[in-house]
Amino acid sequence: MHITPPQEEWINRKIRLQQLLAKSGLDSCLVSQNVGIYYLTGSMQTGYLFMPAEGEPTYYVRRSLSRAVSESQVRTVGLGSFRNFGKLLEADYPTLFSQSDKRPLIGADFDVMPAQLYFRLTEAIPQAQWKDASALLRNTRSVKSTYEVDRISKAAEVAATALEKGIASLRIGMTELELITIIENAMRSQGHIGIMRMRGYNQEIMTGVVAAGEAAAEPTYFDGPAGGRGLSPAAPQSVSLRPIGRNEPILIDIGCCIDGYTIDQTRTAVIGELPSELMDAYKVAKAIIKRSEELLCPGVSPERLYAEALEMAETVGLSNHFMGFGDDQVKFLGHGIGLEIDEWPVLAKGFQEPLEPGMVLAVEPKFTFPGLGVVGIENTYLITETGCMALTISPEKLYELQD
Amino acid sequence: MHITPPQEEWINRKIRLQQLLAKSGLDSCLVSQNVGIYYLTGSMQTGYLFMPAEGEPTYYVRRSLSRAVSESQVRTVGLGSFRNFGKLLEADYPTLFSQSDKRPLIGADFDVMPAQLYFRLTEAIPQAQWKDASALLRNTRSVKSTYEVDRISKAAEVAATALEKGIASLRIGMTELELITIIENAMRSQGHIGIMRMRGYNQEIMTGVVAAGEAAAEPTYFDGPAGGRGLSPAAPQSVSLRPIGRNEPILIDIGCCIDGYTIDQTRTAVIGELPSELMDAYKVAKAIIKRSEELLCPGVSPERLYAEALEMAETVGLSNHFMGFGDDQVKFLGHGIGLEIDEWPVLAKGFQEPLEPGMVLAVEPKFTFPGLGVVGIENTYLITETGCMALTISPEKLYELQD
Repeated sequence: MHITPPQEEWINRKIRLQQLLAKSGLDSCLVSQNVGIYYLTGSMQTGYLFMPAEGEPTYYVRRSLSRAVSESQVRTVGLGSFRNFGKLLEADYPTLFSQSDKRPLIGADFDVMPAQLYFRLTEAIPQAQWKDASALLRNTRSVKSTYEVDRISKAAEVAATALEKGIASLRIGMTELELITIIENAMRSQGHIGIMRMRGYNQEIMTGVVAAGEAAAEPTYFDGPAGGRGLSPAAPQSVSLRPIGRNEPILIDIGCCIDGYTIDQTRTAVIGELPSELMDAYKVAKAIIKRSEELLCPGVSPERLYAEALEMAETVGLSNHFMGFGDDQVKFLGHGIGLEIDEWPVLAKGFQEPLEPGMVLAVEPKFTFPGLGVVGIENTYLITETGCMALTISPEKLYELQD
Repeated sequence: MHITPPQEEWINRKIRLQQLLAKSGLDSCLVSQNVGIYYLTGSMQTGYLFMPAEGEPTYYVRRSLSRAVSESQVRTVGLGSFRNFGKLLEADYPTLFSQSDKRPLIGADFDVMPAQLYFRLTEAIPQAQWKDASALLRNTRSVKSTYEVDRISKAAEVAATALEKGIASLRIGMTELELITIIENAMRSQGHIGIMRMRGYNQEIMTGVVAAGEAAAEPTYFDGPAGGRGLSPAAPQSVSLRPIGRNEPILIDIGCCIDGYTIDQTRTAVIGELPSELMDAYKVAKAIIKRSEELLCPGVSPERLYAEALEMAETVGLSNHFMGFGDDQVKFLGHGIGLEIDEWPVLAKGFQEPLEPGMVLAVEPKFTFPGLGVVGIENTYLITETGCMALTISPEKLYELQD
């Protein structure tokens, strides 16, 4: 009943990771995070995936072993006593663990692995040296397969249907919460798994940011250009109980997750018409996304897209409103997306490794006006051999509704 | 618009944590996790909360500082450059950082803090010695205030309404996904924040486990007695696209989160009637929860509740079906609940510190029958001065519907 990737998918993922391991000088890596384990095994049960730089990986499972065995596409065994994990690895990978001249160098996902688990692992596997392999693991996943792109496209269809339902229900006086409830209902009933995954520590996301007028412009901890007031200081992002008004921007930045893969898109709507200042900014956002489409090609440096976008905002005097306002701006234009919503590469300074075919990126130029709202647009794109292709399918327009 | 706790709430939380710090010999603690920061400041923006064993805490904020300042109930300042965090602490807490005989001992939430962040913190604050304070921080939160109990009760009302809507819509042939979509819609429209928080690494929860027949009995990684098939190996818990049938148990284990506080409850339903084996097990679950209500008193050891429940299951020959089946059993009867769904204490071996007034616990006896389904019941209780009081308000019955 479940859709499963073709067999070569697992082989290709292994090859890609092993190539990066070899290049980095790591002997192996240990993946502890559920999403990372799923990516390499096809199963998300609790355990660890050990991948040597050469040879076959092993999935050491704590629970549920029976389910992991039925789902996993790699060698899968019970972990048994955690304290004996080092001995188990030594028995399974004798060559790696019996080098007379050095201790095996294991990379791990230290950006997500809790410190407590790190201490326990280094105790349980005292034979090893450890290194942070977070960047390497994120790079491995940045290039998507046809199977993965198909899943993201399916999520894009679901999000587009949900957006249309939300737009059709938009009324003056309905609350932001009412609007997102309609959108989420449409996504969930079409198979959205009910959560969106973010890798960043302390980052959370519901199904996106739906917010209108000044509530949309309220700054948050959320690592994105728009935050939203939220329902409580304990949930300080996205929708609030604020009623939607006339002539104010309604930001509908939504995504959903189908078969583990996530889409991200933003459209701006208004009942009545946007104030001219915001309409102008919306047009700049559209111009930025059009320029980005020209730049989304193999060989282009991700940081160039952010730099050019910022320059376009500066030219029209909007740099202080670009991607958040003032002190609360974020310094990127977009982000990789796939099993997690905050994947690599990021369209930001420091990301110089050129774009490659197969990368999937959400590009989200937005402008924030405190007291007034947020306008912008966001599409998710696949990098092709020659350029890019939008995976999001919602009409690229400002949704202007009659009162 | 937001409901905020009374002023003394923050003072009491600080006092409780400082008492535990003093008892443990820690000079201070540093909280990095969003939920932990919210608990101590009233704000969930990105940053760190530093709490000395004596004196006033400081909330060092990265983003959004303006929002943190407007929400926070404690001293709140910008973090500035992460590299200078040590110098900042030294300037703010000179007594603590200028002890000639020893380096200050800082406890931190290492059960959730990523290893990468741990490495960066120890580098940025080289003056300190570090210790895992996860247990201490979880103990601090285990006793709830009146304000907190009120929030959990509000969530209980929402969950009860949602359950009734779900039950009213139950039909032969509807999928598990259709059923949860109705329940989630009811919860969301009443203010559920759209996510449920779990502390455990790699643990995720949608709004609970809704699953019927053999799909409910499929084992998962989820740290609970029932898993569910899920929509994909990438979302291997709770609902699937399986149609609900006649004469099979429908497990409706749901919760929601209002103003940051979570409720958890389970009811079993059936269209037609349960097979007698499952009906018998359901009655044992009811007997266990009734016995638990007698034991939920100040002074009783949490582990005793699990031991007695297991014994009751053993007496009727159901120990292999209790809280999961065979190798996939979990070894607890219930768990603390509040800002997170997996709080302390756990009703499990090793939890010997006696129950205290103000603790809130979900008690969830369940029996799993592979190929047939899961039956059980779950309520959330407040420990009072003399016993316990159920916060969940759904009728405590088997929901038996006509075909």
